[in-house]
Amino acid sequence: MKINDNFERMVPNYLFADVARKTNDFAKAHPDSEIIRLGIGDVTLPLAGVVVDAMKKGCEELRFKESFRGYPEYEGYDFARQAVADYYRSFGVKIDADEVFISDGAKSDCGNIGDIFSQDNTVLIPDPVYPVYVDANIMSGRNIIYAPSSKDDHFLAMPDRKVKADIIYICSPNNPTGAAYNHAQLKAWVDYALENNAVILYDAAYEAFIQDDLPRSIFAVEGARECAIELCSLSKTAGFTGVRCGYTVIPKELSRGGHRLHDLWYRRQATKFNGVSWAVQCGAAAVFSEEGQRQCLENISYYRQNAKIISDTLDELGIYYTGGKNSPYIWFECPNKMDSWEFFDYLLQNAGVVGTPGAGFGKCGKNYFRMTSFNSHEKTLEAVKRIKKLFI
Amino acid sequence: MKINDNFERMVPNYLFADVARKTNDFAKAHPDSEIIRLGIGDVTLPLAGVVVDAMKKGCEELRFKESFRGYPEYEGYDFARQAVADYYRSFGVKIDADEVFISDGAKSDCGNIGDIFSQDNTVLIPDPVYPVYVDANIMSGRNIIYAPSSKDDHFLAMPDRKVKADIIYICSPNNPTGAAYNHAQLKAWVDYALENNAVILYDAAYEAFIQDDLPRSIFAVEGARECAIELCSLSKTAGFTGVRCGYTVIPKELSRGGHRLHDLWYRRQATKFNGVSWAVQCGAAAVFSEEGQRQCLENISYYRQNAKIISDTLDELGIYYTGGKNSPYIWFECPNKMDSWEFFDYLLQNAGVVGTPGAGFGKCGKNYFRMTSFNSHEKTLEAVKRIKKLFI
Repeated sequence: MKINDNFERMVPNYLFADVARKTNDFAKAHPDSEIIRLGIGDVTLPLAGVVVDAMKKGCEELRFKESFRGYPEYEGYDFARQAVADYYRSFGVKIDADEVFISDGAKSDCGNIGDIFSQDNTVLIPDPVYPVYVDANIMSGRNIIYAPSSKDDHFLAMPDRKVKADIIYICSPNNPTGAAYNHAQLKAWVDYALENNAVILYDAAYEAFIQDDLPRSIFAVEGARECAIELCSLSKTAGFTGVRCGYTVIPKELSRGGHRLHDLWYRRQATKFNGVSWAVQCGAAAVFSEEGQRQCLENISYYRQNAKIISDTLDELGIYYTGGKNSPYIWFECPNKMDSWEFFDYLLQNAGVVGTPGAGFGKCGKNYFRMTSFNSHEKTLEAVKRIKKLFI
Repeated sequence: MKINDNFERMVPNYLFADVARKTNDFAKAHPDSEIIRLGIGDVTLPLAGVVVDAMKKGCEELRFKESFRGYPEYEGYDFARQAVADYYRSFGVKIDADEVFISDGAKSDCGNIGDIFSQDNTVLIPDPVYPVYVDANIMSGRNIIYAPSSKDDHFLAMPDRKVKADIIYICSPNNPTGAAYNHAQLKAWVDYALENNAVILYDAAYEAFIQDDLPRSIFAVEGARECAIELCSLSKTAGFTGVRCGYTVIPKELSRGGHRLHDLWYRRQATKFNGVSWAVQCGAAAVFSEEGQRQCLENISYYRQNAKIISDTLDELGIYYTGGKNSPYIWFECPNKMDSWEFFDYLLQNAGVVGTPGAGFGKCGKNYFRMTSFNSHEKTLEAVKRIKKLFI
């Protein structure tokens, strides 16, 4: 019996464990200081009431023989798939309900989608980025190359025509940088993918935070239906981190090697997945109802105000940053050329504020720092007051 | 870009689609006949009230900031893992709570567990069996060999020491045959696995149906902790087919190639999974409460009575069968040496009763037929009345 020895090539990412350890050590040494966590990657506001109501109703239906639901469809209930398609239409993108696969979250799909591709593909991953893309592809033994980004391109990596890739991950608005592509930039990626017969895996998990006139979906771009799969999540859209629901959109015209990728993904899900909980799908559909959208956007608006508190402070301090407007994340250059762990220690020791060192997201993050908008107004205001005191 | 061309080796299984098509054709041609479906593979009784209450309470908690839950642990909440460990203790098997990984269902785990093993392993799969084991391993390009079973071994395939395998799937009580291994038989498999340095993937999805003095878990067998992973589901235990929850148990001492499989699976889940819905885990814990077990066993008892109605009839008719006692499935030899599709047509045309042809579960099923206990008492009684009329 041989284990998958690609696991030996996976470098354990202790980013959040190290952050927690250092924070706890500081708390122990300074029992009277109030630590403020601006590194939170999880939502903190509760679910919209209309979503809770729908989920409870779904649960209650399982109590009675007449309304009981057994195995769901692998690809999701029609009503949930239609709700997603209607949501896309609300921002001007046309997809068909039967192109939508409901899942237990974008992270599962981001990893599992690899099953439909050969190991023998070169994967292009932006740097910095959500570490899951890298780990999932190391695990399956694929060759990984990086698309570096920096201050020069405002952390929006662009395609390099000298580089040949088969699978391209794009996350926009990006985690951790908060930077979001405009239409022309996404078009350049679509053109590059089409030229290379590549497939873009487009992670739109933060699309609900977009305020500017930027694409909410890769399918807003001409040609994307021939080269892109979109993965999205209700985690940040509707606070579903603990409810677990996402969706993946595969256009029916997207084919490679004589196969529709839609068919391959259906076959993969039919073999290794058994659909999403009835009550969760009821809740997901409620998210996309008129009242659901109104209530969910109230939460997003609260987080946006926090993001603005942080980015206004950085503007005032003259610190370079990306994100904050179309994203819950703010990514800024560490002052005084500090590296990201040095700055982490400095900020914790001198201001009692915790963030996330950029080095945890890739080489290009080594002098950058991520803060998030998921704490309360009060704590966020207090944190920026302390930061200002340090740097003005 | 290359697709995973193993998909081309996957033979679409049209079993249930063909059953549905033939049934619909018959219904159209005979609009007045009442068709009885004894092929149902899904539960039909509603959830236990105590489970619905727990899930609704879990949902309600997400309405308020104070009780809101975000990202769950990848491996499940401690209370859910402990509930599973306590459940095992109730039938005399000792596992630790931190050996339990809560998931969205045994089917996901059955497929995804392959990620921790090299492609370069030989997989031994009983015939007949649940088709998902075969498909998941074709998809990942592994060499598959079969352990045939027949009337001679009462459809309990036993290890052949001339055959070398690395990964061994065992399903007991088996789907589709309903046959369940005794302690000595499982011990033979454990010994074989240890001799071959192989790993057993033990699917215990139907363990709650066991009534005789048979092992409810592979871990009731000495040596299993050094060679087995157990996959289980609440789908049949508690009617969770639409709720979606299962669990996988990996003993901490189980190592291969210098790695604890527990660590590899944790890493796999941390990379490609984000845990199970809060409300679902609340419901799962309620299943294993005293009242939950009482209510769930009422449903199982109902199904058992149906199984007895069918197996008593087969006894009366002198037809050979397995299952029915420790399983919701009854697997019988088609009368008059008919093949399974021939018998399907005969039974539908002459009795209006639908079952599942054994050929759909492997070569060894070609003269066998599966019936299930998931219809109502009334329909099951009516079905056997019609069958008796045909064969007495």
